Amino acid sequence: MAGMKAKIAPSMLSSDFANLASEAERMLRSGADWLHMDIMDGHFVPNLTIGAPVIESLRKHTTAYLDCHLMVTNPIDYVEPLGKAGASGFTFHIEVAKDNWQELIQKIKSKGMLPGVALKPSTPVEEVFSLVEHANPVELVLVMTVEPGFGGQKFMPEMMEKVCRLRERYPSLTIEVDGGLGPSTIDMAASAGANCIVAGSSVFSAADPAEVISTLRKSVEAVQHNI
Amino acid sequence: MAGMKAKIAPSMLSSDFANLASEAERMLRSGADWLHMDIMDGHFVPNLTIGAPVIESLRKHTTAYLDCHLMVTNPIDYVEPLGKAGASGFTFHIEVAKDNWQELIQKIKSKGMLPGVALKPSTPVEEVFSLVEHANPVELVLVMTVEPGFGGQKFMPEMMEKVCRLRERYPSLTIEVDGGLGPSTIDMAASAGANCIVAGSSVFSAADPAEVISTLRKSVEAVQHNI
Repeated sequence: MAGMKAKIAPSMLSSDFANLASEAERMLRSGADWLHMDIMDGHFVPNLTIGAPVIESLRKHTTAYLDCHLMVTNPIDYVEPLGKAGASGFTFHIEVAKDNWQELIQKIKSKGMLPGVALKPSTPVEEVFSLVEHANPVELVLVMTVEPGFGGQKFMPEMMEKVCRLRERYPSLTIEVDGGLGPSTIDMAASAGANCIVAGSSVFSAADPAEVISTLRKSVEAVQHNI
Repeated sequence: MAGMKAKIAPSMLSSDFANLASEAERMLRSGADWLHMDIMDGHFVPNLTIGAPVIESLRKHTTAYLDCHLMVTNPIDYVEPLGKAGASGFTFHIEVAKDNWQELIQKIKSKGMLPGVALKPSTPVEEVFSLVEHANPVELVLVMTVEPGFGGQKFMPEMMEKVCRLRERYPSLTIEVDGGLGPSTIDMAASAGANCIVAGSSVFSAADPAEVISTLRKSVEAVQHNI
């Protein structure tokens, strides 16, 4: 795990959507590695947030890695528009991709994006093993640590078992966690093996986001150095 | 029709979504009456744009009338979140509200929003008559003059018959048109009887948006003064 970098990805769902370019810039200046973009369609989850037109607008203002998390029922329909819009990562949910994940991964890569797979809290971790072990694999697994849909929810520590099992099985996989992460929960996630940390409220509501981002990073790096 | 004001509503779908607050301010400074917000869920139309969290963020920066056009399959689920977010108008599509428009109108009003109904190009205008004539009526009819989903499309003049029939039947109704409107098409829409004009590309791509907005307004007012 020594070569696997910590990635801190502020969730723009907690930002001021009316000033997205400057909010993104503020997060990058505060030390963010990635910008996490929550794309929700009001069907897969009971909230509708932003889609490709917003990613396309933001891309004109930044070269940052845009880590897109697709909470939609039909992810395959978004590969082309998000590729064109300038998305960097494309993480779909296994719950709606059981029949076409091979095609999805192939298409996502063909558009130059990094394919990832996400799991809702109720989905067993075994369901993504074949996607990581395939000849054309996903390169990231996102373990939801809250029920997806809204920001500001409470971290579910019982999800750490999934992270542990993934880390044990895949020492160099990028394992992302999303939901309720902040200074008080990061050690649980980092010690379980997560190296990519999505944080919304804890970063955006902080007086000093740089300090929170630094705390998150140190926790992940401390675990890595101990291995 | 003398008392019915022209409303020019730039469509924020053509704006820079990464700078929505300043784009809104620019449009208001250029003479916009309303800001038109296109909410698309990737199911009712093949595009996903913005939802309540974006309206909520924008509302913190402006007191402007936010004219929300719901291109979603389940409009009733959006009444509560959009009401809370600070939407001013809530226009649903009749194609997905045939069974519950009475309940929808009532709920929209109870949240302090102005209820409107929209028609796709293929939907006959007769389908909205009962909504305008009901004891608890919609207060706006939006006639789509392109297939909804994307900006920058070509105006369909054959939709003007719908506008004429509505204006003839309802002299004081707010009749909105959306799609392909600009200086070259406004006279057709205004003379048919539209008084509320959504314009995206023609306003945002103009060197001087104020000039375009003024042209649109003058065309609507010229028709009103002739009546």
